[in-house]
Amino acid sequence: MWIYEKKLQYPVRVSKCDPRMAKLLIEQYGGSDGELAAALRYLNQRYSIPDKVIGLLTDIGTEEFAHLEMIATMVYKLTKDATPEQLEEAGLGPHYVNHNRALFYENAAGVPWTAAYIAAKGDPIADLYEDIAAEEKARATYQWLIDLTDDVDLIDSLKFLREREIVHAQRFKEAVEMLKDERDRQKIF
Amino acid sequence: MWIYEKKLQYPVRVSKCDPRMAKLLIEQYGGSDGELAAALRYLNQRYSIPDKVIGLLTDIGTEEFAHLEMIATMVYKLTKDATPEQLEEAGLGPHYVNHNRALFYENAAGVPWTAAYIAAKGDPIADLYEDIAAEEKARATYQWLIDLTDDVDLIDSLKFLREREIVHAQRFKEAVEMLKDERDRQKIF
Amino acid sequence: MWIYEKKLQYPVRVSKCDPRMAKLLIEQYGGSDGELAAALRYLNQRYSIPDKVIGLLTDIGTEEFAHLEMIATMVYKLTKDATPEQLEEAGLGPHYVNHNRALFYENAAGVPWTAAYIAAKGDPIADLYEDIAAEEKARATYQWLIDLTDDVDLIDSLKFLREREIVHAQRFKEAVEMLKDERDRQKIF
Amino acid sequence: MWIYEKKLQYPVRVSKCDPRMAKLLIEQYGGSDGELAAALRYLNQRYSIPDKVIGLLTDIGTEEFAHLEMIATMVYKLTKDATPEQLEEAGLGPHYVNHNRALFYENAAGVPWTAAYIAAKGDPIADLYEDIAAEEKARATYQWLIDLTDDVDLIDSLKFLREREIVHAQRFKEAVEMLKDERDRQKIF
Amino acid sequence: MWIYEKKLQYPVRVSKCDPRMAKLLIEQYGGSDGELAAALRYLNQRYSIPDKVIGLLTDIGTEEFAHLEMIATMVYKLTKDATPEQLEEAGLGPHYVNHNRALFYENAAGVPWTAAYIAAKGDPIADLYEDIAAEEKARATYQWLIDLTDDVDLIDSLKFLREREIVHAQRFKEAVEMLKDERDRQKIF
Amino acid sequence: MWIYEKKLQYPVRVSKCDPRMAKLLIEQYGGSDGELAAALRYLNQRYSIPDKVIGLLTDIGTEEFAHLEMIATMVYKLTKDATPEQLEEAGLGPHYVNHNRALFYENAAGVPWTAAYIAAKGDPIADLYEDIAAEEKARATYQWLIDLTDDVDLIDSLKFLREREIVHAQRFKEAVEMLKDERDRQKIF
Repeated sequence: MWIYEKKLQYPVRVSKCDPRMAKLLIEQYGGSDGELAAALRYLNQRYSIPDKVIGLLTDIGTEEFAHLEMIATMVYKLTKDATPEQLEEAGLGPHYVNHNRALFYENAAGVPWTAAYIAAKGDPIADLYEDIAAEEKARATYQWLIDLTDDVDLIDSLKFLREREIVHAQRFKEAVEMLKDERDRQKIF
Repeated sequence: MWIYEKKLQYPVRVSKCDPRMAKLLIEQYGGSDGELAAALRYLNQRYSIPDKVIGLLTDIGTEEFAHLEMIATMVYKLTKDATPEQLEEAGLGPHYVNHNRALFYENAAGVPWTAAYIAAKGDPIADLYEDIAAEEKARATYQWLIDLTDDVDLIDSLKFLREREIVHAQRFKEAVEMLKDERDRQKIF
Repeated sequence: MWIYEKKLQYPVRVSKCDPRMAKLLIEQYGGSDGELAAALRYLNQRYSIPDKVIGLLTDIGTEEFAHLEMIATMVYKLTKDATPEQLEEAGLGPHYVNHNRALFYENAAGVPWTAAYIAAKGDPIADLYEDIAAEEKARATYQWLIDLTDDVDLIDSLKFLREREIVHAQRFKEAVEMLKDERDRQKIF
Repeated sequence: MWIYEKKLQYPVRVSKCDPRMAKLLIEQYGGSDGELAAALRYLNQRYSIPDKVIGLLTDIGTEEFAHLEMIATMVYKLTKDATPEQLEEAGLGPHYVNHNRALFYENAAGVPWTAAYIAAKGDPIADLYEDIAAEEKARATYQWLIDLTDDVDLIDSLKFLREREIVHAQRFKEAVEMLKDERDRQKIF
Repeated sequence: MWIYEKKLQYPVRVSKCDPRMAKLLIEQYGGSDGELAAALRYLNQRYSIPDKVIGLLTDIGTEEFAHLEMIATMVYKLTKDATPEQLEEAGLGPHYVNHNRALFYENAAGVPWTAAYIAAKGDPIADLYEDIAAEEKARATYQWLIDLTDDVDLIDSLKFLREREIVHAQRFKEAVEMLKDERDRQKIF
Repeated sequence: MWIYEKKLQYPVRVSKCDPRMAKLLIEQYGGSDGELAAALRYLNQRYSIPDKVIGLLTDIGTEEFAHLEMIATMVYKLTKDATPEQLEEAGLGPHYVNHNRALFYENAAGVPWTAAYIAAKGDPIADLYEDIAAEEKARATYQWLIDLTDDVDLIDSLKFLREREIVHAQRFKEAVEMLKDERDRQKIF
């Protein structure tokens, strides 16, 4: 079970009301390679992965929920002072007529999140490569988002998140090598 | 952010290996009215709901993740000792060839979870009725699951979860009345 | 069975060709809380609901089809004289290349309607809360649409529809209280 | 708008409680080529089709709703006296834990209906071929259903519905030829 | 099996960098009536269609893959020199943050391709009408795309593709008549 | 463009009519990690990947279509002589009423294929890890399929396909290392 602590993993600041950037950021909230996909993917694999990797999946999965909360906070801050007209101007008209200023688990084009984005194979090597790929894809998405803003405060938060994905990818690569070594040792003896 | 505590909200016991019941229980893991839908629904609404309801949504949303973990544990315990043939016999053949014994966010028919199951309107009254309906629907699902098993250990856990949904529904009904009272008071003055 | 009567439930007028508003209105045609979702939800629940509520579901479900026709008429009137360029300018380029000026059951972002938006639990209390929530959500959507237009003719039709959702919500709330009273009486005797 | 008349287009009788056949029949309720798909497809195309075909689409679309109601009645009659165990035995366990004995717009495998099944091109010839194909596909589905039952009462209703699809296909073929003739005449003069 | 030949079926030229048109063209890459849908539809039907139609389906299905490659080449040429800002300006911001300049099987609104767009009934007449409708719908889409550009090079390629769809529709119409004649002959003797 | 050669990449034999195994094999036809997903994923990434990897993606993507054809042939051979009753007995009743003996791009549970299963990031490292993960997941699926059959002829074909996935994974791992080496060299100079 989880206990909620009322703070963000890393401070989130935005320089200005910017619904245009909010629309794009939603990709990391409810998009194919966003934080929801990451958190749910790792926590789900815990039951069939070898014991020694469970802790890693729990830690990273739980951290991804903290990232999801950071993204939500960014989107909220970027839109809370926008008028309906400004939201529509930024391409959020379709979002507004359904959700007003509420968030939703959708990608930047407005497509709802689906579990079809993630995999769980019950094969530890395959699952860890799935996880490495997930982190590499999330890293790329953060880069494409940074490309489209010059808000230094926002960039600071996005760079923190991108860096965390790189660290996670490294941890998963170490885990897969460990499991492969073990598998090879078992074949020998 | 959330901190993981390595214990279940309520103990989960199952009387026997029973993949048939596991297949049905997956409905509350990744089905339309399951625990994932509940947790994600409430936590997502926090940003646009009036301040005085945020705590309620955070508390219940966080608890639903604990329920999700309980369901996952049940499914795992019901299937971990089953042979591939027993899994197929129980209707889990299609699950096995994709996921082996890993869990997945799908309903009992094998349809992946989608955010289309949930709503966020940015209207506090509408959002709270969405939440009341969600709890009433989850309560019904637990009842239909209980109808299909005679495993007393499993029934004990399912009754606990059903009871929690009833409590949550009550809390949401109180919240909607509070907001309506407030709205009416504001209209008068 | 149904008999078609060649008139609208309430007159639909629009002040000008306005494809931008048409794009947004499509939310109530094929969106998650639109008229199609409402009509199909209520008519589908009729078979497992207690007899005394069947008539209510049939009446409201049938009326929602009349609303669907009103929305279709609005969208058609708002777009029929627009050039392809004007449609694209209004964000309807993706719609045009697939559908030209035909309507489609999609939301304002262009996502096709899915039955995942609606529920049927076979539990009368849960089903009626689902219906109350549906009406509250549709009411909110009409409000968000009204926020984004100043076409007085269109607003007149939208206010009529919003008002009907409020009436329906009230009818469903009465029905759920009636069923709960009855359930409580049955427990006593 | 539509007026509900409390009778079925054609009488529906079933010889016995038969949840196995109910599961299969759901295909024509919420499947890709079922009655919901047909009704919604034709009624939606009315706004952009030439005037002389509107009446045909309205008539057939309205009739398909009557067929939808017939299918719903069949499914209800085939399952209303079944125990939960009998429903599960018939492969309806996943349906039961979500919907109990309520109907749902899903196909026989339990996949929710989606508007992706249907098309509206705003090109009269293309739309009418879409409609011809729809009727031919529905005809085939009725045949595959008839293949799997020996309930003479049910077969009688299914044959009626199959026959109607053949008639509709013929009507659409006549309409497309009429429009092509007209188009050719316009090219000459 | 297939052998790749490193050339396009027909030359693809574009007059200028034009991400706006690329966004619309994606409809024929991953939209409901696009080239992917066509290729996969025909190749899939080959196993249950009468022998004398298999060759036709294989030929046209294989050609549709060549068309898919032409569309991909157009989209790539229209976007490869665009800056991220130009892509966002053209409505490709949501695409960029997920895919950068990579292609994706989605429609012009950004909805991922789904097999729900296509049908396979195992009834030769129904399958061929499905295929005729597919070609008529693709023809219409090409027309709606041509409506929205004045790039003469692009129009040349699009007209080639539209023409091919007309030829394919004709071939499928001949095939369905052949099968109907045969069926009628078999009924007589 | 592609040229069709009328032969299979590797011979496909099955020992007996076995619709039960056909139902499971469909996972590799239209499931999340099946051959369609593989072929479409690689061919789609070709436009934004560095030139030196394009040939690899084209080769493997084209080979995956040959695998798709092998799977189709297996499914057809396993079902062509089955009666409707045998198909239903094997869990293919829902498939039969929609598709009869035609194939369809769905997974073993009957969920239609969706492009949401695959990714294209426009970042070569991320794309290649996506591809490695895809091959590892496909390898696992072949293993889970082999677990559920004792048909030696079928196992022979499945082992061939599993082996090819391992080779492809290795090729993609070499490619990602090559690109990383190059990236590191570029940073130094």
